[in-house]
Amino acid sequence: MTTDANSDELDVQPVEFIAERLVRFSDCDPAGIVFFPNYFRMLNGVVEDWWAHLGKPWTELVSKRRVGTPTVQLDTSFVLPSNFGDTIRFHLSVERLGTSSLVLQHVVVGADSARMRARQVLVATSLDNHKAIPWPDDVRQAINRFTERTS
Amino acid sequence: MTTDANSDELDVQPVEFIAERLVRFSDCDPAGIVFFPNYFRMLNGVVEDWWAHLGKPWTELVSKRRVGTPTVQLDTSFVLPSNFGDTIRFHLSVERLGTSSLVLQHVVVGADSARMRARQVLVATSLDNHKAIPWPDDVRQAINRFTERTS
Amino acid sequence: MTTDANSDELDVQPVEFIAERLVRFSDCDPAGIVFFPNYFRMLNGVVEDWWAHLGKPWTELVSKRRVGTPTVQLDTSFVLPSNFGDTIRFHLSVERLGTSSLVLQHVVVGADSARMRARQVLVATSLDNHKAIPWPDDVRQAINRFTERTS
Amino acid sequence: MTTDANSDELDVQPVEFIAERLVRFSDCDPAGIVFFPNYFRMLNGVVEDWWAHLGKPWTELVSKRRVGTPTVQLDTSFVLPSNFGDTIRFHLSVERLGTSSLVLQHVVVGADSARMRARQVLVATSLDNHKAIPWPDDVRQAINRFTERTS
Repeated sequence: MTTDANSDELDVQPVEFIAERLVRFSDCDPAGIVFFPNYFRMLNGVVEDWWAHLGKPWTELVSKRRVGTPTVQLDTSFVLPSNFGDTIRFHLSVERLGTSSLVLQHVVVGADSARMRARQVLVATSLDNHKAIPWPDDVRQAINRFTERTS
Repeated sequence: MTTDANSDELDVQPVEFIAERLVRFSDCDPAGIVFFPNYFRMLNGVVEDWWAHLGKPWTELVSKRRVGTPTVQLDTSFVLPSNFGDTIRFHLSVERLGTSSLVLQHVVVGADSARMRARQVLVATSLDNHKAIPWPDDVRQAINRFTERTS
Repeated sequence: MTTDANSDELDVQPVEFIAERLVRFSDCDPAGIVFFPNYFRMLNGVVEDWWAHLGKPWTELVSKRRVGTPTVQLDTSFVLPSNFGDTIRFHLSVERLGTSSLVLQHVVVGADSARMRARQVLVATSLDNHKAIPWPDDVRQAINRFTERTS
Repeated sequence: MTTDANSDELDVQPVEFIAERLVRFSDCDPAGIVFFPNYFRMLNGVVEDWWAHLGKPWTELVSKRRVGTPTVQLDTSFVLPSNFGDTIRFHLSVERLGTSSLVLQHVVVGADSARMRARQVLVATSLDNHKAIPWPDDVRQAINRFTERTS
């Protein structure tokens, strides 16, 4: 269902996490296309899958270690609509890993055309006081394999 | 439930449409705060209320006249979380009205603190071919009362 | 927005809590009618409003007193579809108040026709061990004004 | 992701369609368990997968052939809560296939315990006038392989 696409091409390429989603009846509005809040529900699920893929699932990070990863900024372009029944692919890459922050790039693609692009800024927080904290070392290391660029 | 706040202050103020919302159980995530896709569902409902307030409800505009108003860009800052049970107010104002486009500013406020800010770009389209069209004259006129600035 | 309808008629009538809802764009599916899981989100919000109306809001009951009110049975008839733009009214009445249980009847009406009927069984639980508990006395008293029948 | 479980056991067993779902962050409420309207969104997706599995996807049936399959009755028991991170399995079987109706049984299971049971009555309708119609022959035949019982 999800794969790493570690490109072999000569140009510099980010390491990508790719997750496929089917556009379901429940995602669509009276115009028969994805209702945009549902894109964000899907996108949140893709980020959830990515954390699990890193070996740091939210069930552990959030529920047990009390480390939150709230979104503080989300800038989105809706390029083309996605229709009921479409298969779309979410491409997640890391733009920047800061002391407490993390910038993700999302490109959603269906049938060879971009559907949506989003830039998401997350921050590590303590769920006890909701203040920013530095990423724990093991989490930073897990994220770091997505900050490399192939060439 | 919704009011126009036509400011009497001396500084230049946009005409605002204000809608109040209660943060419900169904809006909240396991951390007890608004799950961000639900903010967008609420925000879409506020825009829906605003069109009705303009005398151009989507039930007429979209369903009968086949004029769509898809969102093409949405840039959002999440300033502070909103908790289950909070009453929050959505302040909608018009930043710019173009030939086919419309830029809305949203500020969501709860208990005197900003919770979320969003800038939303909409485009008028024909629902028959999904191409951009100029805003119909009556729609443009209805929107225009929100493009004035008081001073 | 919500009212008690304490009937004056001669026949036996339950005390009803009535809440009005607008069928929004976000509630509807590609057929332009309410997507049934969204009826249940609305219904849950009506029950939430009812608890607040009783003076026992979930923010206090659930969050502070750790008394849960999970639904254990929900039987629903979908009579007629509701369309985008419809105003519908949820009529809530109490069928039975048991030691730990509560049976609610819901009738959803739009434009003089029934749209949905539901029978919902709730149970009082401790949120510390998720076991059934008797309704606390003050909660039982608050519910009891809805168990009376007028004649 | 989905399989037919055609039992070899001696007792009479229905033919089952089984679909697995991960309980996501977005499915859960402030108590950290599945918010019940989200169970119905999932269940609707499982039924959608089943129609696709029958070779009669909604994208064809609903969008092209204008045959609707609205739910008219849905009776649900919530047996045990499902937690964030749980993997749950939806077991769908056919209880009865009528001229225009279809009765489905759903059992949702997680970690060897039943979580939810539902009985769902669907009706075939013409989307042109929303009246009941007999199931088209090819649809009836496709459903029929799920009406057999093994022994």
